[in-house]
Amino acid sequence: MLAEIKGLNEECGVFGVWGHPDAAHLTYYGLHSLQHRGQEGAGIVVTDGETLKISKGLGLVTEVFGMGELKNLTGKGAIGHVRYSTAGGGGFENVQPLLFNSQTGSLALAHNGNLTNAIALRRQLECQGSIFQTTSDTEVLAHLIRRSGFYTIEEQVKNALSMVKGAYAYLIMTENKLMAALDPNGFRPLSIGRLDGAYVLASETCAFDVIGADYVRDVLPGELIIIDDTGLRSERFTMNVNRTICSMEYIYFARPDSNVDNINVHSARKRLGKQMALEAPVEADVVTGVPDSSISAAIGFAEASGIPYELGLIKNRYVGRTFIQPSQELRERGVKMKLSPVRGVVEGKRVVMVDDSIVRGTTSRRIVKMLREAGAKEVHVRISSPPIISPCFYGIDTSSTEELIAASMSIEEIRKEIGADSLAFLSQEGLLKAIGRSTEEENCGQCLACFTGKYPTEIYPNEVNRAKNKAQQKDSKTPAM
Amino acid sequence: MLAEIKGLNEECGVFGVWGHPDAAHLTYYGLHSLQHRGQEGAGIVVTDGETLKISKGLGLVTEVFGMGELKNLTGKGAIGHVRYSTAGGGGFENVQPLLFNSQTGSLALAHNGNLTNAIALRRQLECQGSIFQTTSDTEVLAHLIRRSGFYTIEEQVKNALSMVKGAYAYLIMTENKLMAALDPNGFRPLSIGRLDGAYVLASETCAFDVIGADYVRDVLPGELIIIDDTGLRSERFTMNVNRTICSMEYIYFARPDSNVDNINVHSARKRLGKQMALEAPVEADVVTGVPDSSISAAIGFAEASGIPYELGLIKNRYVGRTFIQPSQELRERGVKMKLSPVRGVVEGKRVVMVDDSIVRGTTSRRIVKMLREAGAKEVHVRISSPPIISPCFYGIDTSSTEELIAASMSIEEIRKEIGADSLAFLSQEGLLKAIGRSTEEENCGQCLACFTGKYPTEIYPNEVNRAKNKAQQKDSKTPAM
Amino acid sequence: MLAEIKGLNEECGVFGVWGHPDAAHLTYYGLHSLQHRGQEGAGIVVTDGETLKISKGLGLVTEVFGMGELKNLTGKGAIGHVRYSTAGGGGFENVQPLLFNSQTGSLALAHNGNLTNAIALRRQLECQGSIFQTTSDTEVLAHLIRRSGFYTIEEQVKNALSMVKGAYAYLIMTENKLMAALDPNGFRPLSIGRLDGAYVLASETCAFDVIGADYVRDVLPGELIIIDDTGLRSERFTMNVNRTICSMEYIYFARPDSNVDNINVHSARKRLGKQMALEAPVEADVVTGVPDSSISAAIGFAEASGIPYELGLIKNRYVGRTFIQPSQELRERGVKMKLSPVRGVVEGKRVVMVDDSIVRGTTSRRIVKMLREAGAKEVHVRISSPPIISPCFYGIDTSSTEELIAASMSIEEIRKEIGADSLAFLSQEGLLKAIGRSTEEENCGQCLACFTGKYPTEIYPNEVNRAKNKAQQKDSKTPAM
Amino acid sequence: MLAEIKGLNEECGVFGVWGHPDAAHLTYYGLHSLQHRGQEGAGIVVTDGETLKISKGLGLVTEVFGMGELKNLTGKGAIGHVRYSTAGGGGFENVQPLLFNSQTGSLALAHNGNLTNAIALRRQLECQGSIFQTTSDTEVLAHLIRRSGFYTIEEQVKNALSMVKGAYAYLIMTENKLMAALDPNGFRPLSIGRLDGAYVLASETCAFDVIGADYVRDVLPGELIIIDDTGLRSERFTMNVNRTICSMEYIYFARPDSNVDNINVHSARKRLGKQMALEAPVEADVVTGVPDSSISAAIGFAEASGIPYELGLIKNRYVGRTFIQPSQELRERGVKMKLSPVRGVVEGKRVVMVDDSIVRGTTSRRIVKMLREAGAKEVHVRISSPPIISPCFYGIDTSSTEELIAASMSIEEIRKEIGADSLAFLSQEGLLKAIGRSTEEENCGQCLACFTGKYPTEIYPNEVNRAKNKAQQKDSKTPAM
Repeated sequence: MLAEIKGLNEECGVFGVWGHPDAAHLTYYGLHSLQHRGQEGAGIVVTDGETLKISKGLGLVTEVFGMGELKNLTGKGAIGHVRYSTAGGGGFENVQPLLFNSQTGSLALAHNGNLTNAIALRRQLECQGSIFQTTSDTEVLAHLIRRSGFYTIEEQVKNALSMVKGAYAYLIMTENKLMAALDPNGFRPLSIGRLDGAYVLASETCAFDVIGADYVRDVLPGELIIIDDTGLRSERFTMNVNRTICSMEYIYFARPDSNVDNINVHSARKRLGKQMALEAPVEADVVTGVPDSSISAAIGFAEASGIPYELGLIKNRYVGRTFIQPSQELRERGVKMKLSPVRGVVEGKRVVMVDDSIVRGTTSRRIVKMLREAGAKEVHVRISSPPIISPCFYGIDTSSTEELIAASMSIEEIRKEIGADSLAFLSQEGLLKAIGRSTEEENCGQCLACFTGKYPTEIYPNEVNRAKNKAQQKDSKTPAM
Repeated sequence: MLAEIKGLNEECGVFGVWGHPDAAHLTYYGLHSLQHRGQEGAGIVVTDGETLKISKGLGLVTEVFGMGELKNLTGKGAIGHVRYSTAGGGGFENVQPLLFNSQTGSLALAHNGNLTNAIALRRQLECQGSIFQTTSDTEVLAHLIRRSGFYTIEEQVKNALSMVKGAYAYLIMTENKLMAALDPNGFRPLSIGRLDGAYVLASETCAFDVIGADYVRDVLPGELIIIDDTGLRSERFTMNVNRTICSMEYIYFARPDSNVDNINVHSARKRLGKQMALEAPVEADVVTGVPDSSISAAIGFAEASGIPYELGLIKNRYVGRTFIQPSQELRERGVKMKLSPVRGVVEGKRVVMVDDSIVRGTTSRRIVKMLREAGAKEVHVRISSPPIISPCFYGIDTSSTEELIAASMSIEEIRKEIGADSLAFLSQEGLLKAIGRSTEEENCGQCLACFTGKYPTEIYPNEVNRAKNKAQQKDSKTPAM
Repeated sequence: MLAEIKGLNEECGVFGVWGHPDAAHLTYYGLHSLQHRGQEGAGIVVTDGETLKISKGLGLVTEVFGMGELKNLTGKGAIGHVRYSTAGGGGFENVQPLLFNSQTGSLALAHNGNLTNAIALRRQLECQGSIFQTTSDTEVLAHLIRRSGFYTIEEQVKNALSMVKGAYAYLIMTENKLMAALDPNGFRPLSIGRLDGAYVLASETCAFDVIGADYVRDVLPGELIIIDDTGLRSERFTMNVNRTICSMEYIYFARPDSNVDNINVHSARKRLGKQMALEAPVEADVVTGVPDSSISAAIGFAEASGIPYELGLIKNRYVGRTFIQPSQELRERGVKMKLSPVRGVVEGKRVVMVDDSIVRGTTSRRIVKMLREAGAKEVHVRISSPPIISPCFYGIDTSSTEELIAASMSIEEIRKEIGADSLAFLSQEGLLKAIGRSTEEENCGQCLACFTGKYPTEIYPNEVNRAKNKAQQKDSKTPAM
Repeated sequence: MLAEIKGLNEECGVFGVWGHPDAAHLTYYGLHSLQHRGQEGAGIVVTDGETLKISKGLGLVTEVFGMGELKNLTGKGAIGHVRYSTAGGGGFENVQPLLFNSQTGSLALAHNGNLTNAIALRRQLECQGSIFQTTSDTEVLAHLIRRSGFYTIEEQVKNALSMVKGAYAYLIMTENKLMAALDPNGFRPLSIGRLDGAYVLASETCAFDVIGADYVRDVLPGELIIIDDTGLRSERFTMNVNRTICSMEYIYFARPDSNVDNINVHSARKRLGKQMALEAPVEADVVTGVPDSSISAAIGFAEASGIPYELGLIKNRYVGRTFIQPSQELRERGVKMKLSPVRGVVEGKRVVMVDDSIVRGTTSRRIVKMLREAGAKEVHVRISSPPIISPCFYGIDTSSTEELIAASMSIEEIRKEIGADSLAFLSQEGLLKAIGRSTEEENCGQCLACFTGKYPTEIYPNEVNRAKNKAQQKDSKTPAM
């Protein structure tokens, strides 16, 4: 369920451009199309070949940047970042890109992902006298680059990358160079495009469509892309690569009009829904999806099952950061927030409710209840992904094991807990088949860790604790929906 | 096309509650669910039985009201208003409700609609020494009430209502009374609900669902509802009534989960799409709707035609007031704004693009072009309403006649202008049938003036000029999309 | 004591200009020099001959107007206003000038003073159907003008002025005319100046110095000045005049560099101090004044007495609206606020502390205590005005009778209350002599009502109540110092 | 002339407290009393024994801290800083205190003064991989502390202090310790006080008076004060000390109610004025001072000369950061800004205008002209300090040599340049005598470098360049007055 996961998520979006006179404006539109990947903060750094200028702030892209900010950001190269809202560790100083000026040259960094050895590296650096200004993983890389004894920035970056572990798509910019690096597993998407003579880089291809750029190819796991006025160069900082793309990008995270690894996300989701209809058919009158991320799967389910697709749930578009949550009393008396059922559609009907995932189960329970109160005769829940049983250490913060309902309950127990008439999850095989992969787990190219508990990289013990602490912080927050 | 009309629109939403200790909070959630009816400004007035307190501002409901504002608005009665963005005449002082304090008692007003004799009444009042503080039609009614010699507020209001012409749904509140009035044609929706012991009033029934209230009935044309601590009373201020609900409420304005005159809006729109598929079938590969308002019709079209429904167009959810429009140059180079085509869905396909209306035609042309650039082989445009040939004087400001493309061009000419492979509008009969009305125009209960030019009330000459002036003001604005 | 009175005061400042291309900028600098007359809000209205544009807001002149606001205020005529902070009745809508637009022409008003029959007139107008938007006295005049049946604006204004009572200096502007009116007693100062070909009007002559204008003459009691493109005309709206300038303007209100009725304020204050030294000499080591308004009198006292003048008290310049008052506990432990004693100057010395007035006595008590704690051996208080025993109904809101310490206590009792070694007030004769007037009370040209209780105009009963209510509201506020 | 120097100045103010439950509030009032030392920004860091919390921002103390900020800053220890407005290098990140959090403990620093080897140290640290977040000298010390190999924080600080050169008064705070350090020359004032059981530290003693604390003693040159819950300890980080207090603190910088090195500043200034009257007497009618810093000297001059002291110049209290400067055209036509002459006082008079210093001469020229235009018959300028001929490298940024009028012109030439009838500066001997020092330059305990060019410490070449660059940046700014 999108809303549920979102509150915990650390995903972000990055965008970069080199060689265009309007670099900052293009980055603005690029970030805007990546806004779904992060709403807490946004920032842009530009270079005019001599100095790096930055503008960043808390809030949406449209809130952070006014005409004035953009006009000041003149230059041919730019990188930008949209940041996810996290339970703790927010705050202005953590908004990216991070910019480090010094007498020996400037350095800007934007990061999508999550390092698994950040805490250890940071302690080591602090013991050696480094002063950190943020609580962000990203600053670790900057210190490693600055402390590296190598002569060129490319070598410094490669040396620093060899020390960090986990999931990352980095954009790095100096006065006269734009670099992009993807971790050896390629957990996060990162693509290369062209616009006239310029190069662009983006977390998702939808950013290319928005600015009218052409897709060239994806950055490869373990690859360091270097772009300057002489063109684009590709280097490898490791040969030990093994692509395992995050499955959640297909299931709910990416925008439906993006292609991830050349697979269209909307189409993949529709196939997830069709597969679901084959695996767990049901007799019903209407199919409805939980907006926005489950709509495609619901349409697929409807098409494969022949049951008509309807707007059974409406999402209020105007719920923002400043929305005042109803008091407990008002909520009990029925005041809705983000989602409302459409009584005219569900009343007296047997409803198939398609959702993309179940994390803690509270949201599903609320939606089922809501549909019943609006008159649904039966509610059949179909989840277009396998049960989530293990936490993610690569950026999708799907809670600690204790919180994951599927880690401790059987499907029948979950069904009772959420109050559905029937409940089915997609099989792991079905997931891989619908995405279009080999169905052998070892060979599928996808990270399935949250469904299987088998992590494609080593996980450090203090990261496990960090995840737990975050989860506890989150508990004290008003649940979103 | 929703976006196109929206820029010109004067629609608003009103909400009221009497007899609930949390009146202001309920109004907040009620207005929030009516936000689609107006995004320029919002306001709430409450009464605690002795004084009226107001809080209002420019922006969305969530932007105008913080926790602090709501806490101060204590009282058992409240009225609220969301205001549409208009070309001219904006500004803080025009945000409603309007509140008038005096030594003889206070008066708050909230208005949805458009008076057709406001200018004449205003001139008359000013000549008699009245001082107006706003440029809003609504203030006219306040002056008429205050100048009325009758003894009770009910009589004053009825006397004042007998002098205004046009479309209006008014909420009027004093220290100890809440009143609601609907014009003799009932152009605008206004419904009554109950929540525990309290009465609620709202422009749309979706507001009842959000706060958990039960729908009771609609306010009738020419009816004055009076609610106080003794209960609800109904009076008539005219017997000369003739219900002609605005058709646009069904076609695109109301929220899909609302019922207007007991007809669910999503279902009506789906029937419009089905009817369209019967009237103007086409061979194609995918059906797509222009989000958000045309999705229901597109689903209906797909269902009736058997062509699969797909997300061929994505709307960026984060485009707000502060979005920086791309420069002309960037736009020509392909930078998109609100809408993006989904290449993976439309490439190489014959696409049916369902939209709810065509006003000036510029937006349709842009979307058709966008779909073709994303690879669509053919684009067939299906409009789920008849051609708009006449301006509206009742609150939906669909431009002056000069601007309406269908007022001067044949359907074939429009098709060429927008670059579609085929184009069809819904017939007037089809419209009425799909909504569920008698297909005799005189007897259908709907206002069809924008399709026929036959206005159900007299139109005053200076209103026609006002509409023209507004249209000219709008021309100088950046076109939205 | 300036600070003490300030909290209660309703004084304001007005400025106008006609016939200058930079009218708004000149008004900005003029208002800025009148800022001491009101810090709650500021506003400017300009006319370009066709329309009136307004910009106003809460705060200081420099806070309300940025470069952007001023640039938009183009026109040859302007009026402006600075508003005093009052106990109740604040808020944006009461910031002046008030601007009234209508189809029959626009009208802007700025008012310095206090009407004594505003409540009665307002009730009368409301009963006739007028709707008031502010709680300000000034709006009453606007309604009277609009309701007047006369044909020209001049006649309408004269007719309206004949109905209001009390103290007022009005600036009134239409699209093509600037008018100024002073009440028949001339309580408030209002002067005419010239700058190149333009006319300027200001509450104080210091505004002329700041913009480089030449002083021409004062507006006369009962005079209506009319300025348009043909020049300046003088008319009388009453022949029944009797100048009684407010004495407080000399004692503490006006700026030392202004001339009021051709008498320099700093010089007058210095003479008050000299006169005090003659009337109540004392043996002491240093003379100090309470900044800022008592500095001139203290210098005069020092000069006449031969005792050296020292900076014994320092005022913190940076105490603004947003200053956080110390908690009661911190205050008791000695945390100072606006004023600090200079230990190095007063320690071990016999100090003469010159102040301009005593209202409630609390501030004087605090300062005496502060000086003693800083080591002063003796503190002799000399007040450069007679005891205040009666409230003011003409704009200087010196509290209700109950609050005025001198209304109920003898001078010896006050001395004990404030803890001084000796205390003396200036005699009424001494006051008039120092200002330079005839010492016969009936014939002195000054209003002495607050010292004598004899009011030069009739006072209406409900005004007395209004003063009391205000006083009660003020009691609940943190005392300033 | 205060205003003139102010624009260029780098002075700041620091305040600290240890052992008081209201540490943050006391710091607020302390900083407020030091506001004259810096208006660009303010910040407070508190410790509750476990974590350090910070709040800081651009603007005045009252603008930066609202009730909310202060309430969150709970703890028994606090340090605060007010920062001067500088030509370049402003910005939020440079507002102090600087706070550095790390896994090995937190560190907060506040700095008043200017290092003379900051650039060299910074380059060295950056080459070793340190990343700087600010452009402030202060961060250099933090890196030196963190890189120091010593075990205790005291040893780390002493080691770091041994590497920095120039003028500094540092406050340093960790979770459980407050430290204060003064450079070996003691250029800047820094005093110790007690309040109940707590210790307080402040740049000026006026801060003690404001919070009701008792003065204990000054921090000594080369001394490191360490305060924790066991009490106060004094250590020396160097034995090579030689006190040379900045003379400008007496001449214009410190507040008149402060004691610097046990000498009251107001009294010292008054003696400067008296000495001036002895050294350069003149026949005149009135003495006036340039507010605010020259008032004391003017009173002294008046007392010694027998010429009456008058308010000949008025300073507008409401000129803030947001004041809109008059256009060149309006200024030429006579629009004044900060200062206005009092025509009623100077007209037809021979005026002695006492000022504290002349830097570039432009302000003096403007004031003389202003006085003449207001009718002064003669204007005699008396400067209560010797001519400034050399730039300052210790925090008072009195421009580069090229800009200093006295560096290239004789006194007679300056007199002509500023248009005075006579001009005299105080002698160096007179200065020392009036302050109360030995008149032997080598032995006087004062830094006289700006008058003599003889610097008490070594000056590094790149600092001279930095001063020049700053001076050039300043040239492009509108001159203040």
